Amino acid sequence: MALDRDEISERVLEIAEALISEGGAANLKARSIAKQAEIAVGSIYNLFGDLDQLHGQVNMRLLDRLADAGAVAIAEQNKKGVTDTRLRLFSLAGAYLSFVQKHPASWAALLAFNPRKMAVDRQLAYESRLDTLFEIIAAVLAEDKTLKLDEQLLRLTARTLWSSVHGIVTNGAGRRQQERQGDGVWDQIDLLVTTFLKGIDRG
Amino acid sequence: MALDRDEISERVLEIAEALISEGGAANLKARSIAKQAEIAVGSIYNLFGDLDQLHGQVNMRLLDRLADAGAVAIAEQNKKGVTDTRLRLFSLAGAYLSFVQKHPASWAALLAFNPRKMAVDRQLAYESRLDTLFEIIAAVLAEDKTLKLDEQLLRLTARTLWSSVHGIVTNGAGRRQQERQGDGVWDQIDLLVTTFLKGIDRG
Repeated sequence: MALDRDEISERVLEIAEALISEGGAANLKARSIAKQAEIAVGSIYNLFGDLDQLHGQVNMRLLDRLADAGAVAIAEQNKKGVTDTRLRLFSLAGAYLSFVQKHPASWAALLAFNPRKMAVDRQLAYESRLDTLFEIIAAVLAEDKTLKLDEQLLRLTARTLWSSVHGIVTNGAGRRQQERQGDGVWDQIDLLVTTFLKGIDRG
Repeated sequence: MALDRDEISERVLEIAEALISEGGAANLKARSIAKQAEIAVGSIYNLFGDLDQLHGQVNMRLLDRLADAGAVAIAEQNKKGVTDTRLRLFSLAGAYLSFVQKHPASWAALLAFNPRKMAVDRQLAYESRLDTLFEIIAAVLAEDKTLKLDEQLLRLTARTLWSSVHGIVTNGAGRRQQERQGDGVWDQIDLLVTTFLKGIDRG
């Protein structure tokens, strides 16, 4: 029985995801996909336009999974009754760190990917995926009534914490010496979140 | 007059740097270098081992230039008599932001580069270049006697600030919408540095 268009797209996406996960963007080749999916090379272009569009869609799936991981981390904290903002932010940072460690090649490929290569409507969908990530952090900050952040400052704070943790996680990858010296990824995340929360003007 | 080994190495490095600057690591091809340097392809391998070693050496030059830019930024603050830690850290962050904007492809290639591809002695030289960058920040923090950071905490704080600013700078690249909404790169750097400094325990 022949697969329909949606089923083939799904299959191509799964293969593309596996290829990027194995060898980064350089490993995403139309010929490899066509062979594994048992379709013609031309079908890939018919379905996705070009390989950049396909990579963009793989990235959107990754971003969805990361958002899910964040939501799970917060749900677990809620279940345990953890209301401390610092601990809730640690759990989000931990979810991000695990995610990056689990998908090193795909995540590096996502970071190197230029969303402007995608069709315009896709770019908006892509940015909205990123916004979802900020919103998870913003929600944690908003629930802490001692912080008294207005909407603008809430958004800026969420983005700043996200970017900072992102910098710590991606910078620290593979520097074993730091971990030994006590200034590894977790030491930095702890210092950042703890000091930043202390420094927020609660006036 | 024939060039000596050092002169040819220098020339190859300059060409390699220009190639990476134009098109990232994918643009670093032995054939292109050989043609421009008017040498045999084999000479490149004789001089550098392989293209990863060559890329590593280009990266070390970039790191040296970034360290120079940081030193210049601090020297300018000293000349102006600026002793405020927040302003001095802003000037370092500004130097980093300008540097990344000036070398987008080379910097992306450096970040994607795995130093473990280099010969072991080179890896150490590479890491010591990175340490120089942290030391510039650590020196600014050490000069602020109100902070009272011991050596371990000084190093951890320098790394944390560096990684965080790095995350903000690299995450924010190309997201114009954020700048309009007031949560762009500079807004984040300002909030990070200001809030973090306030949060440091001066007990």
